[in-house]
Amino acid sequence: MPLTAPMKPTQKSPAKLAPLLAFGAHPDDIEFGCGGVIARETQAGRKAHFVICSRGEAGTHGTPKQRTAEAKRAAALLGATAEFIELDGDVHLEFRVAHAIRLAGIVRRARPGIVLAPSVAENQHPDHAKLGRIVRDAARLARYGGLKDLRHLPPHAIEHLFFYAVTPEAEPRDISPVFIDVSAPDIVAAWTAAMAAHRSQTATRNYVDLQLTRARLLGARAGIGHAIALFPNDPLVLDSLAPLSRGARHF
Amino acid sequence: MPLTAPMKPTQKSPAKLAPLLAFGAHPDDIEFGCGGVIARETQAGRKAHFVICSRGEAGTHGTPKQRTAEAKRAAALLGATAEFIELDGDVHLEFRVAHAIRLAGIVRRARPGIVLAPSVAENQHPDHAKLGRIVRDAARLARYGGLKDLRHLPPHAIEHLFFYAVTPEAEPRDISPVFIDVSAPDIVAAWTAAMAAHRSQTATRNYVDLQLTRARLLGARAGIGHAIALFPNDPLVLDSLAPLSRGARHF
Amino acid sequence: MPLTAPMKPTQKSPAKLAPLLAFGAHPDDIEFGCGGVIARETQAGRKAHFVICSRGEAGTHGTPKQRTAEAKRAAALLGATAEFIELDGDVHLEFRVAHAIRLAGIVRRARPGIVLAPSVAENQHPDHAKLGRIVRDAARLARYGGLKDLRHLPPHAIEHLFFYAVTPEAEPRDISPVFIDVSAPDIVAAWTAAMAAHRSQTATRNYVDLQLTRARLLGARAGIGHAIALFPNDPLVLDSLAPLSRGARHF
Amino acid sequence: MPLTAPMKPTQKSPAKLAPLLAFGAHPDDIEFGCGGVIARETQAGRKAHFVICSRGEAGTHGTPKQRTAEAKRAAALLGATAEFIELDGDVHLEFRVAHAIRLAGIVRRARPGIVLAPSVAENQHPDHAKLGRIVRDAARLARYGGLKDLRHLPPHAIEHLFFYAVTPEAEPRDISPVFIDVSAPDIVAAWTAAMAAHRSQTATRNYVDLQLTRARLLGARAGIGHAIALFPNDPLVLDSLAPLSRGARHF
Amino acid sequence: MPLTAPMKPTQKSPAKLAPLLAFGAHPDDIEFGCGGVIARETQAGRKAHFVICSRGEAGTHGTPKQRTAEAKRAAALLGATAEFIELDGDVHLEFRVAHAIRLAGIVRRARPGIVLAPSVAENQHPDHAKLGRIVRDAARLARYGGLKDLRHLPPHAIEHLFFYAVTPEAEPRDISPVFIDVSAPDIVAAWTAAMAAHRSQTATRNYVDLQLTRARLLGARAGIGHAIALFPNDPLVLDSLAPLSRGARHF
Amino acid sequence: MPLTAPMKPTQKSPAKLAPLLAFGAHPDDIEFGCGGVIARETQAGRKAHFVICSRGEAGTHGTPKQRTAEAKRAAALLGATAEFIELDGDVHLEFRVAHAIRLAGIVRRARPGIVLAPSVAENQHPDHAKLGRIVRDAARLARYGGLKDLRHLPPHAIEHLFFYAVTPEAEPRDISPVFIDVSAPDIVAAWTAAMAAHRSQTATRNYVDLQLTRARLLGARAGIGHAIALFPNDPLVLDSLAPLSRGARHF
Repeated sequence: MPLTAPMKPTQKSPAKLAPLLAFGAHPDDIEFGCGGVIARETQAGRKAHFVICSRGEAGTHGTPKQRTAEAKRAAALLGATAEFIELDGDVHLEFRVAHAIRLAGIVRRARPGIVLAPSVAENQHPDHAKLGRIVRDAARLARYGGLKDLRHLPPHAIEHLFFYAVTPEAEPRDISPVFIDVSAPDIVAAWTAAMAAHRSQTATRNYVDLQLTRARLLGARAGIGHAIALFPNDPLVLDSLAPLSRGARHF
Repeated sequence: MPLTAPMKPTQKSPAKLAPLLAFGAHPDDIEFGCGGVIARETQAGRKAHFVICSRGEAGTHGTPKQRTAEAKRAAALLGATAEFIELDGDVHLEFRVAHAIRLAGIVRRARPGIVLAPSVAENQHPDHAKLGRIVRDAARLARYGGLKDLRHLPPHAIEHLFFYAVTPEAEPRDISPVFIDVSAPDIVAAWTAAMAAHRSQTATRNYVDLQLTRARLLGARAGIGHAIALFPNDPLVLDSLAPLSRGARHF
Repeated sequence: MPLTAPMKPTQKSPAKLAPLLAFGAHPDDIEFGCGGVIARETQAGRKAHFVICSRGEAGTHGTPKQRTAEAKRAAALLGATAEFIELDGDVHLEFRVAHAIRLAGIVRRARPGIVLAPSVAENQHPDHAKLGRIVRDAARLARYGGLKDLRHLPPHAIEHLFFYAVTPEAEPRDISPVFIDVSAPDIVAAWTAAMAAHRSQTATRNYVDLQLTRARLLGARAGIGHAIALFPNDPLVLDSLAPLSRGARHF
Repeated sequence: MPLTAPMKPTQKSPAKLAPLLAFGAHPDDIEFGCGGVIARETQAGRKAHFVICSRGEAGTHGTPKQRTAEAKRAAALLGATAEFIELDGDVHLEFRVAHAIRLAGIVRRARPGIVLAPSVAENQHPDHAKLGRIVRDAARLARYGGLKDLRHLPPHAIEHLFFYAVTPEAEPRDISPVFIDVSAPDIVAAWTAAMAAHRSQTATRNYVDLQLTRARLLGARAGIGHAIALFPNDPLVLDSLAPLSRGARHF
Repeated sequence: MPLTAPMKPTQKSPAKLAPLLAFGAHPDDIEFGCGGVIARETQAGRKAHFVICSRGEAGTHGTPKQRTAEAKRAAALLGATAEFIELDGDVHLEFRVAHAIRLAGIVRRARPGIVLAPSVAENQHPDHAKLGRIVRDAARLARYGGLKDLRHLPPHAIEHLFFYAVTPEAEPRDISPVFIDVSAPDIVAAWTAAMAAHRSQTATRNYVDLQLTRARLLGARAGIGHAIALFPNDPLVLDSLAPLSRGARHF
Repeated sequence: MPLTAPMKPTQKSPAKLAPLLAFGAHPDDIEFGCGGVIARETQAGRKAHFVICSRGEAGTHGTPKQRTAEAKRAAALLGATAEFIELDGDVHLEFRVAHAIRLAGIVRRARPGIVLAPSVAENQHPDHAKLGRIVRDAARLARYGGLKDLRHLPPHAIEHLFFYAVTPEAEPRDISPVFIDVSAPDIVAAWTAAMAAHRSQTATRNYVDLQLTRARLLGARAGIGHAIALFPNDPLVLDSLAPLSRGARHF
């Protein structure tokens, strides 16, 4: 399978899988932080949609136009759709209620089961931590029925909010991670292709290699090829122990 | 359904569910700490076996004979089997390698997928924390092929070790909990009956009520009736996000 | 004693007890988070005053007018007075210095010994965490003599700031709690009545039961009926160990 | 008042204050770690007794005989009595159940309200952390009615276990401290005298100055002269907020 | 050497030491929080520059004019230069991107190797924590080549960001400290003189003594006279273990 | 340079570098956990000695004889010497004072500046955590002048104890790491060769790749090729900030 072919998801019981909504502060954050998880979910028939909150206009490399195109292509390679919104602009994001309400409106419109956001660890690109906090509040506000700003959209309660970590520094220290197995060759290929689609970013620094190395190291702990860590904002609730048939205890 | 009728598990795909092995320091620890989870698993067709490491001979109430009988009855009510082993005796448990090797032998014999043990938080009954640490080591030693003490038993790698907390003080503060839904009326009934089977312990202090109150409070957070928190020793590894369709974010 | 009769405090050495000032983001936060503590303090002769920073106008149920009336009635049932202030409005609260200065002015006016505020844990209603941080700063600014914005009011140094947790998620993980015994029947009754006074909120969801369950679980740990946990912002300073005659070590 | 005059406690309501029992691994640990608290309590009419678990026979300076004499004199200066027990010997202490049972017997005999023990932080003199853990278990075993080893002594439930930190490294990081005000001149004098009584230890290294400096720094935070930090093993339970009239929020 | 003589640094290989840039929220923060470190660095030939973000106009004592003069004199005593900038004013500082960009511009202009900022612990003067967070972001933005607001200044990547703690409460609990030895008599003298230069602040409260006491206590742990703790924002990277020839393990 | 040629250290000021003493529970722990650091230190002229506390006789692969030979060869490749001691045997190590005293004797004999030990994180091979705790105590006992068991050897105070983590799970969460740059090609080569020398262990599982991947990931954070994280047991004490010319803040 060529690296650049978009995912062709096997439509396994799509009716059962509520949509996934992923937020990114910059055009490549979702792909680098958890692209393999997206590929895995869309392959399983889950719909995935990206909300990208800047066009990377303060980045060292790439024009906003280039970056928008790269992000759209990357999303397609992962089987996802993407939209761009303007909050305060790249590097200029503020933690404000108005943003949380706006994102809550998007949550109400998209009605996802699972929401992904950058982690709230503060020692990283400031837009990441702030967006993570904004999304956490937005996911809550989305279900508040009395919020007048959003009265035109019916309330929606998501199932889960997971944080992804764009870099190792962003991994939260106070949440136990969940590892998602992304070892299947087509998943790794789709993820790699989606990262590589951000050509303006990968020309000078080997970000792709960094992420694959991280995933391989987590995979080694789980006795598999590659894994991506997600950090649940709230305790997982399970009907039984049946789905927990694997643990990262290889060493 | 009368409270005292043993669980009649619906044999749903028992072939797929690896056995569960639960360790308790005293005859009632497993039931009080996570009995509802046991009921839920055996109901789903998973085999469950208890290893009880003392006969509660230092307890304020109940003779060893009474307590052994109560534990056997409680296990049966949960659909589980039970065996008793003698380590150092009630209140006298030491953290020793010989115990870990002995329990590793039991793990090799039972070949469980999931192991349950009391948490390692130190501010609780000292036997609990020590047994938790011993089981953690035992679950590791069980897979070490070169361990001569156990050469008569083939190595076995478990999938997961989860800690349960007999009391609130025993809940680990550095592990994110997983909530298991035990709200189904027959599960609550079986759990309640199993706890009540320890008549020597429940006559004077309302331990049953304590546990149901804990479970109801966790359930409220998850928007369900009752839940029991387990604390995974290692990161969960999942094939996808599909099983994570619920989160404890009701408030 | 009927549930709806206001507290009649026994005026025990009121001169010695500095007033208590409690801040709430919404009309029912103080009652649900720590109403039993308020009842206990006013019963002992301490004056208590509530500052409520919105009228709950974004809530799913209840009009601002209804909620204001409910809050006033609830405060009266606890033996406290209440005032409403407008910051940014329900769900719209921002963390701003201007708010901290405004609340510092209220602290200077009320001159409390003890201040209560919602906890600063971020994974809860966003207004709660922000108000907690604003009050923490306000309690500090209240004693800064050179602050020109407040030069018309003499500086005031409070004795203690305690955080209360409206829901279990809001309990801070890095502060050891102090349990306040609220087991006395008249205290439980007054607290229950004050919560129930928020009829618009309690019609659909059993919040009252949640709080009583939490209190009963903490009480069980302390060997008493009901307890409420408060989280001191600063180390307690005591003249001796004499007042510490009880500990939550029942299990 | 000369530094070397024993405390003459003002017998203020001694009936109400349950005895205090302090454990030390070496002859000077209690005095250096929390001597000021002892002085404060005995001055208030509380009986205090020291159980010293070695004679410091592995210390660099001082013979066991000298050190025993110094400890007795120091205890007297603080208004306390002292006894010596032999566990495994200085530097040789092991964490064993037999020791916990033995100390539980002492707790049953002394029937204290408050127990003091060295903290369980591991990066300190190994005897300290181990004794702290042994005492924590002992305080629990003391109330277990069925423990045959101690059947000759009626069970006893203490009110509180507090840890003291002999050095800054031993301060637990996961427990919020309680500061005890030891600023009164006669308390500082008695504490200083008790530390100085350990002449064999203070000749070469200025341990006395270290402790007074620590106490002065904590005192500065509380706006008082000197304070000693204790670390409660369990949540404090209070009848009301009345005793909490002071907080360490001076900066 | 008189306390008030400015440092005369021994010009040891100044070419190799990249400049140090220290940020303070108020005219005396740097001196009280880490003045001894500044003295040590300038003595070794490193250039040091202070950026002071208010004139202390909300302080209880001292006029802005007095405080500016005191800060300049104190900086000179430490061998440093100082400049004043106006953000939102004393006590009024907000956490805003515009401030981070402005400070990033200063970082690009000064091109430091090491940056010092107040810690981000929230329970302290609110300006301190906010400035710490602003500087953390600024140090990152300084190296982002595409930031249009700063396109007139070439990007600059600092080597290290260290936090200092103006008071004990401000010491971060989740970062292991590094102790800098400031025991040399001329360093202690220069530091003391720089603190004493803030006469308007030291007249009423003994802040100088507080800081020297803190430094003496840390020094005691390291077996030296005085030490100041810094808290690295990122892991230290060393060519080898050679520079790590001393550890704080005296007790 | 062939992978299997022993290190030829450049004898840079060997007089100044106190010896390094590394403890391992099994024949390959030191090499896998921190072999690159050893290579870097011996290259700089520091003497390094390994104390290996079992012959790996419980390992799945390799005989004790083979493993002893492999370890000796690996040590030589890193420029270090090695000795074997017998404590309780592989997998059978107990945490006992007698072991700490014995290792303290070795510390007194070797008189190292720096000691390396496996981390004390409990969720790893049980021998590792126990040995880490034993070494921590041993490093302390080594300087206790009055310890009769060791009176034949003069006391010795080490400078630093660093923990290494054989696997990612073993990395302590409560200590900030220090990254040692091991990027130089000859260092990587020597480290790789030393790990590869453990042929009995590397035949079936790619442990070498795991460690190099870990080192590359840390290196990426520091902007270099490879780095190894060490975890200081005590605060670092530095004469100045001069040695801290690099930080892991590349992302």
